[in-house]
Amino acid sequence: MTFTNTRKVRIEWGDCDPAGIIFYPRYFEIFDASTAMLFEHALGMTKPQMLKNFEFSGFPLVRTRARFLKPTRFGDDVVIDSTIAFNRSSFEVEHRLSLNGDTCAECSEKRVWVIRDAARRLRSHPVPEMVLNKFRK
Amino acid sequence: MTFTNTRKVRIEWGDCDPAGIIFYPRYFEIFDASTAMLFEHALGMTKPQMLKNFEFSGFPLVRTRARFLKPTRFGDDVVIDSTIAFNRSSFEVEHRLSLNGDTCAECSEKRVWVIRDAARRLRSHPVPEMVLNKFRK
Amino acid sequence: MTFTNTRKVRIEWGDCDPAGIIFYPRYFEIFDASTAMLFEHALGMTKPQMLKNFEFSGFPLVRTRARFLKPTRFGDDVVIDSTIAFNRSSFEVEHRLSLNGDTCAECSEKRVWVIRDAARRLRSHPVPEMVLNKFRK
Amino acid sequence: MTFTNTRKVRIEWGDCDPAGIIFYPRYFEIFDASTAMLFEHALGMTKPQMLKNFEFSGFPLVRTRARFLKPTRFGDDVVIDSTIAFNRSSFEVEHRLSLNGDTCAECSEKRVWVIRDAARRLRSHPVPEMVLNKFRK
Repeated sequence: MTFTNTRKVRIEWGDCDPAGIIFYPRYFEIFDASTAMLFEHALGMTKPQMLKNFEFSGFPLVRTRARFLKPTRFGDDVVIDSTIAFNRSSFEVEHRLSLNGDTCAECSEKRVWVIRDAARRLRSHPVPEMVLNKFRK
Repeated sequence: MTFTNTRKVRIEWGDCDPAGIIFYPRYFEIFDASTAMLFEHALGMTKPQMLKNFEFSGFPLVRTRARFLKPTRFGDDVVIDSTIAFNRSSFEVEHRLSLNGDTCAECSEKRVWVIRDAARRLRSHPVPEMVLNKFRK
Repeated sequence: MTFTNTRKVRIEWGDCDPAGIIFYPRYFEIFDASTAMLFEHALGMTKPQMLKNFEFSGFPLVRTRARFLKPTRFGDDVVIDSTIAFNRSSFEVEHRLSLNGDTCAECSEKRVWVIRDAARRLRSHPVPEMVLNKFRK
Repeated sequence: MTFTNTRKVRIEWGDCDPAGIIFYPRYFEIFDASTAMLFEHALGMTKPQMLKNFEFSGFPLVRTRARFLKPTRFGDDVVIDSTIAFNRSSFEVEHRLSLNGDTCAECSEKRVWVIRDAARRLRSHPVPEMVLNKFRK
């Protein structure tokens, strides 16, 4: 089961460095928001609403890999395609960031579904069936 | 002569701090981009295009003041109204950031129009008539 | 009663924009950490320890003003002098950021001491006497 | 030929998210500055000085991989060990970020040494012998 979400982001002046190109940690801010947006579109609720409605305390990143193929610059309107695939208590998202159809950056992230246990500690937990169902549609 | 631009911004998870509210330096990133967007809408060109088309090397901030009235949180879709008024070689922008009609933050910034002189040093310069004309419409 | 703390910060590549100078929202990140550091030095504990040891849930900013006099660049080691003065339930901090003795930026911030009431809402509260005493030494 | 540099970084309030732990893109800001610092220590000059003294226009990242093992929180003083190994026109840096001896995050980055050609375009170039020599000591 996979599901893809697409969104557009403007690269801003403040995202760019003295070389005139994006400072790469900003890509990870974009990817993090892209994963949140993917859930928002699939579930029809924002992350704060998810925190209220599901057995859920976040999906911390455990591993990420990224390749940077072509630089982007302020004023660029880039497109991010984000595709999710679920495991039992974790999921993987592939992000492709492109400008005018050319891939500029690719990122693969693995995140764990976590809840807080009785002692308020974060621990992994199977992704709720209710969530998975929303992605099946 | 004043001119107002309005845009909408999503407050992201990564914009917020352990208190669950926006970390205030993020507001200044939003305001900076709002000023750039205001020019983009008035001139019909992006900041990189301005750098090519006008005697222009940026509009660095010389002074800013902000008041924070109500916190905003991740998931909030806030509205920023930005109003510009020109002086000879500088301009002032008033930003009002609101959520559901309630003002959450107000910011007033003063920026100088700068060019690079023969020695590549930045110095202030009168805002070109061609730019002012675009805001008069 | 005033109290001053001084610290040194390196301006990093990623703090700077395509004009080669610091992107000004980064100054507010520096000032925010400078206020935290001022308390840490006066109280001999970090902000997380303050959250545990005092009736305290943070000191959100209610107003800030800044002037930018000279740009700073990546590689610059700047000095920030931060001076605090207390009111009853609030305090003001003046930050002066300088490079080789020249003032580059000045910032004045007003913050409110807040606690969470029974309903978990943040509300202002007099700065505890125990805190004030530490600044008197 | 490998070379290691170690530095200490404070995790700040503004680096952390509503879950109270570091927002992971901030790690990449820390790693980027750690690579710059590694060169600064080996060469005895800052990145701006490198840009003046060497055939050098930066070392953009082409690939990064990171694993996040344990979260860090504001107030934590983390240690970053960064080890570099050179190829002909590129190099790899391994960062290990730890707290009290426990590894919290690991990152591997590959960067290319670039110069600007006659047309002002960035292109890869062998790392100058003068630079390599500094790391041999």
